[in-house]
Amino acid sequence: MVNPTQYPVMVIGGAEDKVGPRSILTNFFKSAGGAQATIGIVPCASQEPSVVGNRYTRIFSELKAKSVKVLDIRRPQECDQDGWLQALDSCTGIFLSGGDQVRLFEFIRNSTFATTLKKRLNLGTLVLAGTSAGAAVMGEKMISGGSSGESPNRGLVDLMDGLGFVPEVLVDQHFHNRNRMARLLSAIAANPDKLGIGIDEDTCAAFKGDGTFEVIGKGTVTIIDPRELTHTNYRSSAPTSPLSLHDLRVHILSEGDEYDYRRRSVCMPTHGMVSHF
Amino acid sequence: MVNPTQYPVMVIGGAEDKVGPRSILTNFFKSAGGAQATIGIVPCASQEPSVVGNRYTRIFSELKAKSVKVLDIRRPQECDQDGWLQALDSCTGIFLSGGDQVRLFEFIRNSTFATTLKKRLNLGTLVLAGTSAGAAVMGEKMISGGSSGESPNRGLVDLMDGLGFVPEVLVDQHFHNRNRMARLLSAIAANPDKLGIGIDEDTCAAFKGDGTFEVIGKGTVTIIDPRELTHTNYRSSAPTSPLSLHDLRVHILSEGDEYDYRRRSVCMPTHGMVSHF
Repeated sequence: MVNPTQYPVMVIGGAEDKVGPRSILTNFFKSAGGAQATIGIVPCASQEPSVVGNRYTRIFSELKAKSVKVLDIRRPQECDQDGWLQALDSCTGIFLSGGDQVRLFEFIRNSTFATTLKKRLNLGTLVLAGTSAGAAVMGEKMISGGSSGESPNRGLVDLMDGLGFVPEVLVDQHFHNRNRMARLLSAIAANPDKLGIGIDEDTCAAFKGDGTFEVIGKGTVTIIDPRELTHTNYRSSAPTSPLSLHDLRVHILSEGDEYDYRRRSVCMPTHGMVSHF
Repeated sequence: MVNPTQYPVMVIGGAEDKVGPRSILTNFFKSAGGAQATIGIVPCASQEPSVVGNRYTRIFSELKAKSVKVLDIRRPQECDQDGWLQALDSCTGIFLSGGDQVRLFEFIRNSTFATTLKKRLNLGTLVLAGTSAGAAVMGEKMISGGSSGESPNRGLVDLMDGLGFVPEVLVDQHFHNRNRMARLLSAIAANPDKLGIGIDEDTCAAFKGDGTFEVIGKGTVTIIDPRELTHTNYRSSAPTSPLSLHDLRVHILSEGDEYDYRRRSVCMPTHGMVSHF
């Protein structure tokens, strides 16, 4: 049994199960209040907001949410219209869909809508989930694009500001699925004050609001912690030159693992087998 | 100016430059004696040994090696025929081509040829290089196959014994190019006494014979050091379940970086910019 608001912020690596046991979406639904939940779907990262809105409406309706609304914001700043702000006020859970994170950022940034969302997260009266592009925007800095199949280098990743719901982290998604280790490493070389979090598909870093998160889902969450970095050539390297990053701490976390992102340490495992070391 | 036998063992991540400045192949050539070198090409990992043999013969001839021989071994154990052993005796450098590492292993393992090679490496009278499949066989354990695009899990990697020229390491190649982080992590979870080394294309870990190696080439060498591992679920996890690996030390090394694989630490950087931390 999952408690209401157990996970105030859920950062999902994309391609979460929508047809089977839906463990991540069910956790979000329960965390937002279960049968008492009013879910607001924000599909504006997508170029097909109606299709995306309808798909998630069907899912949360099947789970028997009290109410499901699609906040189909169609332009930057439109989110601050009274209708959308009133809809937000009535929601206990907001779900940011996939699509293009830059589009999502442009539609929501510097808005009363975003400020209200943060205020309600702090008050503990709202649960926020984002998948794929909706996950990318969670940090203060976000990966807006990039490529893969190369060694880590400055030109491999495009960075810009994010919406900052969890300021300390720098998120990448579809992580091992789309070969994004080098991209996240390059992003962390540029932002060594952040914690890199690479989330696989159908996997979620479920933040608990106490400085920790728990892993839910089918894959892994990769933590890149540069706090003990002893050397990088980032500042002196040419845009396409390979990067050096010495003394990173890396954790591979799977379902049930918990990580304290303020203390930068894995919480004592309570499942699986203790290492034989 | 590169000294003869500067790099007794060169482990190359595949797709090394063959038409431009050829920095890795030139380093191998010089390390094997330069104009005094007798280079032996072992193309038996490849299903097209003649094509591969001819290509490298042309390259080392153009570099003006004293002599270039193709050791075109066509069957397991054939390498112990007098002709091949005599050819080996005359070589100052042996180059293992790409292809299939299992084929290469089966052709060479438990042979006088392999023992002689190791003996001469220890004596410092021979330089050994291997690219791609030729790199994979270097460790005591080798990755014989696997897949990519998934979270780290036990089923993602096939492991078997390697030829053990550098027993301590577990090599993966075409590393960031082919999305092999999860595969190498899975291999290290199974062999936590080894040091994981992921080598990008046109990049080389050039071992110096003193317990250190230097990075040469266009990409990065990724070190996965599990010595401080605090937890893994490897033994209790199902074959396709995601793995946990807590407290890995990871280094991203680029050209000129040196790593001490016995002490498990990066040598003090003498190039680039010291970190701003």
